[in-house]
Amino acid sequence: MSEETLKTLYVDELRDLLDAEKQLIKALPKMAEASTSGELRSGFEHHLEQTKNHAQRLEQILEGLGEEPKGKKCKGIQGIIAEGKEILGEDYEGALMDAGIISAAQRVEHYEIGAYGCVREYAQLLGENEAVSLLEQTLEEEKETDKKLTELSKTINSDAAGVQGIHQARSAGA
Amino acid sequence: MSEETLKTLYVDELRDLLDAEKQLIKALPKMAEASTSGELRSGFEHHLEQTKNHAQRLEQILEGLGEEPKGKKCKGIQGIIAEGKEILGEDYEGALMDAGIISAAQRVEHYEIGAYGCVREYAQLLGENEAVSLLEQTLEEEKETDKKLTELSKTINSDAAGVQGIHQARSAGA
Repeated sequence: MSEETLKTLYVDELRDLLDAEKQLIKALPKMAEASTSGELRSGFEHHLEQTKNHAQRLEQILEGLGEEPKGKKCKGIQGIIAEGKEILGEDYEGALMDAGIISAAQRVEHYEIGAYGCVREYAQLLGENEAVSLLEQTLEEEKETDKKLTELSKTINSDAAGVQGIHQARSAGA
Repeated sequence: MSEETLKTLYVDELRDLLDAEKQLIKALPKMAEASTSGELRSGFEHHLEQTKNHAQRLEQILEGLGEEPKGKKCKGIQGIIAEGKEILGEDYEGALMDAGIISAAQRVEHYEIGAYGCVREYAQLLGENEAVSLLEQTLEEEKETDKKLTELSKTINSDAAGVQGIHQARSAGA
């Protein structure tokens, strides 16, 4: 009985993350499409496949707990995606747009690293060993994605620092 | 001229973070108040003072750039805080409420770690050395706060796993 209470929070957060992953499955193709760097675009395409897998893992864990594999509106990711959309709507071009997209994507990854870190701990305390292993795999993939984004940002941010944005380009007649 | 473009993104993200810190200055006292662990509560009170300082640093950096020290609605933190309010509204008691609050707070910290990491890189590329140092200080404080929350969560989550929640407590007549 004592484990039912942490289990309530655990199930609630699994559902929150399932909805987050589902929101990201819709958002990632837009981020890929807006990326001007081929490497960044293929990075998002790769992460989209991982994200579909993350959602499936969460469904599997919820089903294993005898819970309906349904998401619960994740307001955190909703806000972060809304912020990302603002960047896609800016008059940024080339490396500058890519820099902005990377910044939005890293907020997503960091949010997820925080959230998966918590549910993994709950799973461990609840003795849900299979779930621990699945959540650990996802957590590692989120961390790797964040690292890859940091690596890509090094060249892209430098390019952005030396590249003309659309305002300058337009006024120069480009 | 070339630096003006990355500067646009830099200023935009500084304003986003300034609004985030201001939202947190309002949210942290509610998280402190809802905490049942004295250590967690005093942790939030301490972080509130740091957060006020983080906002001041951002204002100082914006002023140094000749920009108005005004925030720009940070939808990311708004969503994460809304999620935290949902937790405060749950019928969780004792360690379980504290575990939920820690989970919400770690999403905040991770979001900020991602965001400050990006602006610090922009500042470096733009040769804004004083800003780099200020942003680095804030980034380190956010990382330390996240670590402290992880430490506190170890005891709190274990307690939550062994503690009766209000549903069980009520049905037991407590």
